[in-house]
Amino acid sequence: MSGHIYRVTEIVGSSPEGLDAAIRNGIGRASRTLRHLDWFEVTEVRGHLVEGEIEHYQVGLKVGFRLDEDDEEESGAG
Amino acid sequence: MSGHIYRVTEIVGSSPEGLDAAIRNGIGRASRTLRHLDWFEVTEVRGHLVEGEIEHYQVGLKVGFRLDEDDEEESGAG
Amino acid sequence: MSGHIYRVTEIVGSSPEGLDAAIRNGIGRASRTLRHLDWFEVTEVRGHLVEGEIEHYQVGLKVGFRLDEDDEEESGAG
Amino acid sequence: MSGHIYRVTEIVGSSPEGLDAAIRNGIGRASRTLRHLDWFEVTEVRGHLVEGEIEHYQVGLKVGFRLDEDDEEESGAG
Amino acid sequence: MSGHIYRVTEIVGSSPEGLDAAIRNGIGRASRTLRHLDWFEVTEVRGHLVEGEIEHYQVGLKVGFRLDEDDEEESGAG
Amino acid sequence: MSGHIYRVTEIVGSSPEGLDAAIRNGIGRASRTLRHLDWFEVTEVRGHLVEGEIEHYQVGLKVGFRLDEDDEEESGAG
Amino acid sequence: MSGHIYRVTEIVGSSPEGLDAAIRNGIGRASRTLRHLDWFEVTEVRGHLVEGEIEHYQVGLKVGFRLDEDDEEESGAG
Amino acid sequence: MSGHIYRVTEIVGSSPEGLDAAIRNGIGRASRTLRHLDWFEVTEVRGHLVEGEIEHYQVGLKVGFRLDEDDEEESGAG
Amino acid sequence: MSGHIYRVTEIVGSSPEGLDAAIRNGIGRASRTLRHLDWFEVTEVRGHLVEGEIEHYQVGLKVGFRLDEDDEEESGAG
Amino acid sequence: MSGHIYRVTEIVGSSPEGLDAAIRNGIGRASRTLRHLDWFEVTEVRGHLVEGEIEHYQVGLKVGFRLDEDDEEESGAG
Amino acid sequence: MSGHIYRVTEIVGSSPEGLDAAIRNGIGRASRTLRHLDWFEVTEVRGHLVEGEIEHYQVGLKVGFRLDEDDEEESGAG
Amino acid sequence: MSGHIYRVTEIVGSSPEGLDAAIRNGIGRASRTLRHLDWFEVTEVRGHLVEGEIEHYQVGLKVGFRLDEDDEEESGAG
Repeated sequence: MSGHIYRVTEIVGSSPEGLDAAIRNGIGRASRTLRHLDWFEVTEVRGHLVEGEIEHYQVGLKVGFRLDEDDEEESGAG
Repeated sequence: MSGHIYRVTEIVGSSPEGLDAAIRNGIGRASRTLRHLDWFEVTEVRGHLVEGEIEHYQVGLKVGFRLDEDDEEESGAG
Repeated sequence: MSGHIYRVTEIVGSSPEGLDAAIRNGIGRASRTLRHLDWFEVTEVRGHLVEGEIEHYQVGLKVGFRLDEDDEEESGAG
Repeated sequence: MSGHIYRVTEIVGSSPEGLDAAIRNGIGRASRTLRHLDWFEVTEVRGHLVEGEIEHYQVGLKVGFRLDEDDEEESGAG
Repeated sequence: MSGHIYRVTEIVGSSPEGLDAAIRNGIGRASRTLRHLDWFEVTEVRGHLVEGEIEHYQVGLKVGFRLDEDDEEESGAG
Repeated sequence: MSGHIYRVTEIVGSSPEGLDAAIRNGIGRASRTLRHLDWFEVTEVRGHLVEGEIEHYQVGLKVGFRLDEDDEEESGAG
Repeated sequence: MSGHIYRVTEIVGSSPEGLDAAIRNGIGRASRTLRHLDWFEVTEVRGHLVEGEIEHYQVGLKVGFRLDEDDEEESGAG
Repeated sequence: MSGHIYRVTEIVGSSPEGLDAAIRNGIGRASRTLRHLDWFEVTEVRGHLVEGEIEHYQVGLKVGFRLDEDDEEESGAG
Repeated sequence: MSGHIYRVTEIVGSSPEGLDAAIRNGIGRASRTLRHLDWFEVTEVRGHLVEGEIEHYQVGLKVGFRLDEDDEEESGAG
Repeated sequence: MSGHIYRVTEIVGSSPEGLDAAIRNGIGRASRTLRHLDWFEVTEVRGHLVEGEIEHYQVGLKVGFRLDEDDEEESGAG
Repeated sequence: MSGHIYRVTEIVGSSPEGLDAAIRNGIGRASRTLRHLDWFEVTEVRGHLVEGEIEHYQVGLKVGFRLDEDDEEESGAG
Repeated sequence: MSGHIYRVTEIVGSSPEGLDAAIRNGIGRASRTLRHLDWFEVTEVRGHLVEGEIEHYQVGLKVGFRLDEDDEEESGAG
């Protein structure tokens, strides 16, 4: 983060494989609709269990993205 | 939460009646514009006092909702 | 905050000058696209260092704004 | 809270009925001796159990009240 | 709590009605199998949403109960 | 979590391989003796070092499981 | 704590001897001016060092005391 | 803090100018009625927004002051 | 903690003497019914006051113990 | 922070002027002996009071600096 | 940790691969200059994003190492 | 802490006797290699159990020490 203004959005990524994949899935989804993604930070790690097995790892993420001078609509978006 | 990607938005619901109503009012407002609401979690409980009486209970809420594969615009919304 | 529903958005403001300016820059950016801003709260204070000097102070902010009865699109925004 | 100085006092309200009543009882007691109460915030929720039943809900509260220019004695009070 | 040893167990109570009922349901379930319940404390408040409505309020609870001198098996229980 | 009562137990899983394996080992052990496991949440991540190498990753876990109407003994267990 | 209203005051007790003595000194001082003390809880433990030795252990304490129905002035005190 | 007993009171200082001024205003108000102020610590930073501008910075403060041997009334005050 | 699975149980030890004794009393009680105790960690320190004196110090403890391969019943216990 | 290893050191900067100056003084002192400073984060804000005035603002800082491949001695330093 | 004195140093390990590798890289770097490493604990998980992809996972670590009786210089080092 | 710059180092002191001794042992070790120690603060209290007995109390400590104008090497040390 340098001298810009950023917005932070919160998502939960999930995967049956593990923590890294859950993070990647969450970031991948965010990158489809948000530009200028800059950093993420993990806020919690949970998982869903079915019949004694981990069905999905779930990772809470805060994702920061830079607001451009002319990105009026993005700031308004959230 | 199962194997989907979720977005988490933060709102403050309020009510002169009590905590349950403040939560319901916040969720009710969110459900007018967001689809696929899945869970909420209370982040703080406050209230506004006027002349020694509770004018409003205020409940901070994180609300999680599922992002569909084709809900591009919702993710971008915040 | 009185008897309304509020949304809370999270931003990071920055400035080479100091904390107050970083907060003002963040709020200034948010006010360009959001109506009815009501309060902010500081969530973290960081900074970026270059050659032993503070290049930017960075202040994490939660910003609360009132949702009007007819502001359907704003709640949906995030 | 606007441009005033506030004091914050901490109390525990209780009630056999539920959370809302415990909060109201705490605020009601505070309002008998403090003027210009402005807000409260819940710090913890506990309860006392007797023979497997909830005897009392107990709610920790921080209560903020405005200090007037000429309320010297209130600030000194705590 | 006075001069005894206590064990603390963690449960999640739920109810479609509201927070007080969710707490009562959790305590009621614990009291069916644990003796000498002494206090509870709320650790988190969440809820499950279905079609924009609150299906269940869920309240995380720590429940403390006194260990009697001769309650060997309860301490061992967990 | 839907409209049931849950118990939460706390374990520490470990593995020389990594975080995912440490979580799986902990869940695997819990599932040998507890029925109706529903979710887990990571409470801390630590590790043991021997001669400058990671000997074991250790992951603290809260594991929630549903109490059935007729599972008297499980609730009493802890 | 049973079905009463309590006030919570915050003090720092200290002693050159150790933690227990620092707590006792703090409680002893509070009991000279407050009636109906009911519980305390430690909020932080610090100490002052002089020439590499512990000069004083310092223990932050929240002290709860019961407000009687007719103790108007005590509630006002803080 | 050396080998004395201290009381801690909580206030909120505010200013339209910035954080330093909000702290100074809070401390200034406390010093009008409390003797032997020794330290403060910031507990939260918030602000009130009007028409997209910061109307007041608000800084939560814990203020510690030394209790003299003969200051019976001050300890009682809070 | 090395490469084993552990369970963590939560207790509150108490003593009229002081913190060390309260911890020892809690651990002593746990060791009567649990095998392979490995570590503890203090979660909170409180106390009960009667007539201005400390009647009991109370120390919240998390206690970790190793689950043996064949200790099926212990894991199930809690 | 990009793909490097960093060390984090903790300092307390102070100034009679205000928060920005206290941060700058702390960073300035750290930069005299540490190379490759990259970021800081504020951990606490306190101050020392003398005769009702703020004598010094004190800001706790974590400061991160990059470890070069050949900076053996710096990592060893702390 | 047994009956020794330990120092705790804080580092940030990173890797483009994932969390486990970021931890290993951080520990590997620390082990080049510190002897008697004993445990680590994860303090935060973040990452750097470039063009919508995770460029580096970054894991904050506290690393504890034993101070030998004759390791004067290591304690002084930090 | 007055108008100086301080460094904060983190150690874990231990003792088979109790909390006070564990703190003293940690401070004693730090004072062998660091000058101008000024304060400490307890960050966590743990212990190691062997055969149902407390083998060592372990106390995490942050220790602050003043950096002199000419103590270049100490700041660099950590």
